[in-house]
Amino acid sequence: VSAPTPPPTGRPTAVGLDIGGTKIAAAVVGPDAELRERVVVPAPRTGGSEATLRALLDATDRVRAPHPDVAAVGVGAAGMVEWPSGHIRWAPNSPYENLPLRDRLAEHTGLPTVVENDANAAAVAEARFGSGAGRACSITLTIGTGIGGGIVIDGQIYRGPTGIGAEVGHIIVDAEHGARCGCGATGCLEAMASGTALARVARDAARAEPGGMLADLAGDPERVTGETVFEAAKNNDRTALALFERIGFWLGAGIASLVNVLEPGIVILAGGLGGSVGDLLLAPTRSAFERYVFARPHRSLPEIVPARLGPDAGVIGAALLALDAR
Amino acid sequence: VSAPTPPPTGRPTAVGLDIGGTKIAAAVVGPDAELRERVVVPAPRTGGSEATLRALLDATDRVRAPHPDVAAVGVGAAGMVEWPSGHIRWAPNSPYENLPLRDRLAEHTGLPTVVENDANAAAVAEARFGSGAGRACSITLTIGTGIGGGIVIDGQIYRGPTGIGAEVGHIIVDAEHGARCGCGATGCLEAMASGTALARVARDAARAEPGGMLADLAGDPERVTGETVFEAAKNNDRTALALFERIGFWLGAGIASLVNVLEPGIVILAGGLGGSVGDLLLAPTRSAFERYVFARPHRSLPEIVPARLGPDAGVIGAALLALDAR
Repeated sequence: VSAPTPPPTGRPTAVGLDIGGTKIAAAVVGPDAELRERVVVPAPRTGGSEATLRALLDATDRVRAPHPDVAAVGVGAAGMVEWPSGHIRWAPNSPYENLPLRDRLAEHTGLPTVVENDANAAAVAEARFGSGAGRACSITLTIGTGIGGGIVIDGQIYRGPTGIGAEVGHIIVDAEHGARCGCGATGCLEAMASGTALARVARDAARAEPGGMLADLAGDPERVTGETVFEAAKNNDRTALALFERIGFWLGAGIASLVNVLEPGIVILAGGLGGSVGDLLLAPTRSAFERYVFARPHRSLPEIVPARLGPDAGVIGAALLALDAR
Repeated sequence: VSAPTPPPTGRPTAVGLDIGGTKIAAAVVGPDAELRERVVVPAPRTGGSEATLRALLDATDRVRAPHPDVAAVGVGAAGMVEWPSGHIRWAPNSPYENLPLRDRLAEHTGLPTVVENDANAAAVAEARFGSGAGRACSITLTIGTGIGGGIVIDGQIYRGPTGIGAEVGHIIVDAEHGARCGCGATGCLEAMASGTALARVARDAARAEPGGMLADLAGDPERVTGETVFEAAKNNDRTALALFERIGFWLGAGIASLVNVLEPGIVILAGGLGGSVGDLLLAPTRSAFERYVFARPHRSLPEIVPARLGPDAGVIGAALLALDAR
């Protein structure tokens, strides 16, 4: 889908959209990943696919208006997205389903449009302009409410034949004893090492220790969140530190699995939990990784590093993919 | 490395060599995967790299002699093989290490030579001429003493940047409670679902049931092997059937992990255990796979099928890779 675009005022830019569980970010992004305009609006929780679509079109129009050099639109959307059709099949934590998003957006904007899984979009941004710059192969894990991620090889996303591959949060690390995952399976990495998993094991710990720092900080064991654990860990609370050890253990084992299969040059941790807590999570993750990776003494190991682009990785990656597809 | 070859008598053929833990197979293979000459010799258990090399050169000379159209040599070798250098870094169950096999063979034969991991070579043969023919992406798991495997995308092996990727037997399926793997990690698929794992859990079962069919067939619980379990299962022994259920459980969970990441069109089970026991292993494997694969109701699932080329897959794949590289 393509249409006449306004005469460019320089190198072309693209609109990047990032649809998360709670908000939609829209930005105009230049070819060197620079942000020129940015809005964030709440993601509609009701109203189904049409409400999401309306919010996306409004946000696109708003950021695009002052930028006649916008030449394409890219979206990173939570859920199973078919590539290249940009058809969203299913999104476990979002109100849309069976949405032909690429075609609807292209129709409205008259611009070439691509739609990709949100974690894949973020992975492209990190691979090209973030922590993965210069590496032939990187894996980015977006660790927040869930665990998403993307595999980028020579700058391109590994998508598998129908574009729903690289569900790296759903490798099974504890098939038999693990926690139930939102996807229906047991012991997925997401069920063991996401922000949701951290909050779950933290509530368990606070209940077992009603006079402990976690329960104290939250006021009630049931109100303990990942942030509570972070606060307590900064105050050297042993229970909180052990919880990060635990999450890092699973994360490191999962990363070892991925590295054994794909052998990336670098592994990048992004997202609310992965990208921000630093050594509290990185140290136990690296330690478990070294314990579980194949043939450690006989190979050079990829580094495990935090993401560099922060919460903007999604809009940047979506825009870069749109510029690729022009 | 390249040198003049005799004038071809038709379409060129290649020598394929397959170095396993106990034997070396050599064959002359045509471009349509047809075997024209074949020898099998014991793999030297002592004498290190030089003994292995001598055995390979002898076997090559023997099969090549009557075939002037041999234009290249390919090897599938157990162990960590660097691609394209054909340098074998390390082989956990073989007496060679740090062996520049490609260069030594090329020097001796004067022919273009490639050396690849044995499971990768078998995977190429199955992908192109076996059960994977016509599929864009296949994963072959070679399940015997250990679990090797190969990922083939558009006819080409996925190797990762330094050629040691796709260690699919070393994804972690039971990080915390799993058995110790020969690689040093815990809960690798190989430690839970290989022929060695089957024999281990079968001996445990026979010890717990000294009057049972397994102990009876083997004469002694300590002598129970995978074959004993197979015999007992054919006689509907419940303990033996439960052991196949158990191995299939881990195999299915591991395949789900791989499919979630790579989304192949087909998964092929090869090797002494994977390729030959049929529904005893396939049924529980498929059942666990469907339980653990991501978003089952929203996608089409790859089939899990036995390999078609049997024990010749290794020499065929090695020869095909050699013909590619000419």
